[in-house]
Amino acid sequence: MRYELYYWTGIQGRGEFVRLALEEAGADYVDVARLPASRGGGEPALMRFLEDRTAAHRPFAPPFLKAGKIVVAQTANILQFLGPRLGLAPKGEADRFWTHQLQLTVTDFVAETHDVHHPIAGSLYYEDQKREAKRRADDFLRNRLPKFLGYFEGVLDANPKRGGYMVSGRLTYVDLSMFQIVAGLRYAFPKAMARAERKTPGLVALHDRVAARPRIAAYLASPRRIQFNQWGIFRHYPELDRK
Amino acid sequence: MRYELYYWTGIQGRGEFVRLALEEAGADYVDVARLPASRGGGEPALMRFLEDRTAAHRPFAPPFLKAGKIVVAQTANILQFLGPRLGLAPKGEADRFWTHQLQLTVTDFVAETHDVHHPIAGSLYYEDQKREAKRRADDFLRNRLPKFLGYFEGVLDANPKRGGYMVSGRLTYVDLSMFQIVAGLRYAFPKAMARAERKTPGLVALHDRVAARPRIAAYLASPRRIQFNQWGIFRHYPELDRK
Repeated sequence: MRYELYYWTGIQGRGEFVRLALEEAGADYVDVARLPASRGGGEPALMRFLEDRTAAHRPFAPPFLKAGKIVVAQTANILQFLGPRLGLAPKGEADRFWTHQLQLTVTDFVAETHDVHHPIAGSLYYEDQKREAKRRADDFLRNRLPKFLGYFEGVLDANPKRGGYMVSGRLTYVDLSMFQIVAGLRYAFPKAMARAERKTPGLVALHDRVAARPRIAAYLASPRRIQFNQWGIFRHYPELDRK
Repeated sequence: MRYELYYWTGIQGRGEFVRLALEEAGADYVDVARLPASRGGGEPALMRFLEDRTAAHRPFAPPFLKAGKIVVAQTANILQFLGPRLGLAPKGEADRFWTHQLQLTVTDFVAETHDVHHPIAGSLYYEDQKREAKRRADDFLRNRLPKFLGYFEGVLDANPKRGGYMVSGRLTYVDLSMFQIVAGLRYAFPKAMARAERKTPGLVALHDRVAARPRIAAYLASPRRIQFNQWGIFRHYPELDRK
């Protein structure tokens, strides 16, 4: 099965959580919009899907994944679809609902992280909502970031398998997402994270363990990994960061 | 199976999307925190779950559902769990992923709707972020509300079964959620909705069809249905509404 991932070019964004799963599994996939136009790529390939009002299962927004005839959207839903197919989901039903529940909590955290620099509207520039962003960042760093990271650290602690993974005793897609969360927050809020990480040693260890996996390490060193930048979810505005 | 729903008392909130599914199915359930303390109810019953750091599957936040030994959290995940059990999910795998994808898009819309009155922080009062809320409401009513409602209307239009339901030819949990979205937005933004509804006749018809279902009608007329109020997701602040 060749998977087709559709996501904006130029940013990691929400697509990155899917890329990490495909890369870890060594899956056969194409990142469609990043192909040259001569090979059917470019953002027009993506827009054709989003604008086809006759399509039975039209996505609201990227990322979406085409797998044969199935088109699946919403990051956590894509991961839930891919998990068993790529060997990145636990076996039992209860554990699968739990893994997805954690991924949806990651989704919530990602949305809140994005809104730190865009508290008023995604359609406005950061510069047009800078004052509001500062207020939101203060609350985010004081309350929300410690609450989410503390929760995820607690999940590691309470996992009866005690192997350092979020669910059961082996790697699942939500571990890959936790890597991305830690990496992204370090880029966006280096001061706040230096402090927060003292209380979340399990997450730091999980980040390092994921980064050292051969396929992930190769991916991170490759041009397929887009660098963090000022257009994605995790953006570094020094004025929003603080110890 | 007796289901136990855990959610804050006094608001419809995210719990309402679960309540509507349980009510439509005539399921045997208890709304735990709304029971008197003498019967094991009250918010302490809920807090015990959230604060039990040794629990293997501790939720990040309400709502969560206990079904035998399984505890499931995250609204869309609960509905995905309940759907097949209550006869409110379609049969095929592709349609189930699609239904869940739509529910996750509802989740995104609900979060954005909430943040209209709380753009800076959930920990602050509306009065402390009123100016920012006005700015966010302007963008929400101009861009986001029409985009989401237009998308959902398009889903009804593109459904090949053409029976007025979101997925396939019969009622699923996401139809119940669309009812709640329309009802909530009418309460919060009566002026903006009066205008928006002219372009979304399918959603209005779906709202009416759901409201007329015997079990839903009985539920809405019962004291089990908490009224919309100024503490939930959908709040009516006249200064945020506009034609």
